[in-house]
Amino acid sequence: MAAPQLKRIDVCLSPELIDLYPLNDRTVVVIDILRATSCMTTALANGVAEIVPVADLDACRAMRSDSCCTAGERNGEKLDGFDLGNSPFEYMNPDLKGKRIAFTTTNGTLAISKSLNAAEIIIGSFLNLDAVVRYLKAGTRDIIAVCAGWKGKVNLEDTLFAGALVHELAGIAEPECDAPLMALHLYRQAKDDLAGFLSNSSHVQRLKRLHIEKDIAFCLERGKYEVVPVVRAGVIVRA
Amino acid sequence: MAAPQLKRIDVCLSPELIDLYPLNDRTVVVIDILRATSCMTTALANGVAEIVPVADLDACRAMRSDSCCTAGERNGEKLDGFDLGNSPFEYMNPDLKGKRIAFTTTNGTLAISKSLNAAEIIIGSFLNLDAVVRYLKAGTRDIIAVCAGWKGKVNLEDTLFAGALVHELAGIAEPECDAPLMALHLYRQAKDDLAGFLSNSSHVQRLKRLHIEKDIAFCLERGKYEVVPVVRAGVIVRA
Repeated sequence: MAAPQLKRIDVCLSPELIDLYPLNDRTVVVIDILRATSCMTTALANGVAEIVPVADLDACRAMRSDSCCTAGERNGEKLDGFDLGNSPFEYMNPDLKGKRIAFTTTNGTLAISKSLNAAEIIIGSFLNLDAVVRYLKAGTRDIIAVCAGWKGKVNLEDTLFAGALVHELAGIAEPECDAPLMALHLYRQAKDDLAGFLSNSSHVQRLKRLHIEKDIAFCLERGKYEVVPVVRAGVIVRA
Repeated sequence: MAAPQLKRIDVCLSPELIDLYPLNDRTVVVIDILRATSCMTTALANGVAEIVPVADLDACRAMRSDSCCTAGERNGEKLDGFDLGNSPFEYMNPDLKGKRIAFTTTNGTLAISKSLNAAEIIIGSFLNLDAVVRYLKAGTRDIIAVCAGWKGKVNLEDTLFAGALVHELAGIAEPECDAPLMALHLYRQAKDDLAGFLSNSSHVQRLKRLHIEKDIAFCLERGKYEVVPVVRAGVIVRA
């Protein structure tokens, strides 16, 4: 029996670099740890039916209806005129069960829209890390982790999650260039104390100014949910 | 007496991200460790008068004259019709003393041309790390380290050098966002054995296939030269 072929894994550290990566035959994992993909994971794990990622603010606001809530965030803050913000705790509300949510954020929804050429897009966060890893192990496609970053710049928390994927997929998927190696080295340095490692990072500092330390701690909890959100025809649903 | 104000240091991990950075009031350090900026440092330290970075291959070839040598590299290999390649040892030749060199490479010369809006551009490599650090400490401007990377993608060796700058400038220049923190964490992990840390990196693997381990070892030697190459009116000369 032939040994199973190694998959390849690459890491795109910023959506601004996405044109350098072949997406069409890949599974893309979109990562926006603080807090879009953590919210999406929490929402679907708590019974939300589907999430429509929308890059544009006004387009998102216009989708509000009896059957569709809106979630809007810019620069880390909830926006007037939207039902929901970007705290994962808001998405545990039982009233949201079975609902559709139109969702726009500073970085996460842009990372999704820039990845739409991929063969498949899934949503990753520490909250569903173990489920995502199992999903990727079971799949046959090569993998690209797309970090949402912050307004085009790289960030530490998304890179660490990408590194966690590379770490967990060792022996299954081989790093394709230096970005996955960088992410892997950083994750191995950080993994025993993610919060401590991130405490000086720019986005954690930014969120601390907004007094949402509780959100940060929650978003770094590992393997809390079994759900793997996937993007199907532009809409995020359970796999 | 007022305490001196902290400078700021940022790191641009790929020339593809350069539009995200304000360059006009900054000192840019261009970094292409394997091997363009290591060659440029070696050349000026060994008496070459000036180096003209040229992004385009044909434009570079056309500059050849009695007073101007040409240096050309693509994908790690020396090119036909050029006097010199991209090995630092070639630039120790005493015949080059006082000469001008037109220089084109896959990544390094592009990183320079994309940085031309900066207030000042200097050339960094491990070979002149200590001199570069002293120069930056003495200067008043905020700093951006621009990594040449590999065809738009990030690479480990340039990121490590950027991290070395952040590390050496601790207390003098404060990291501006997460990229300098990432570079710093990686450098601190790697600094006691740079060659070992880099041995699996994509570019080191690529160069090993070309049998230039000797070049790699040389490019990782620290503080061998005192020269700080600066770009003046598009030409690289000693500061």
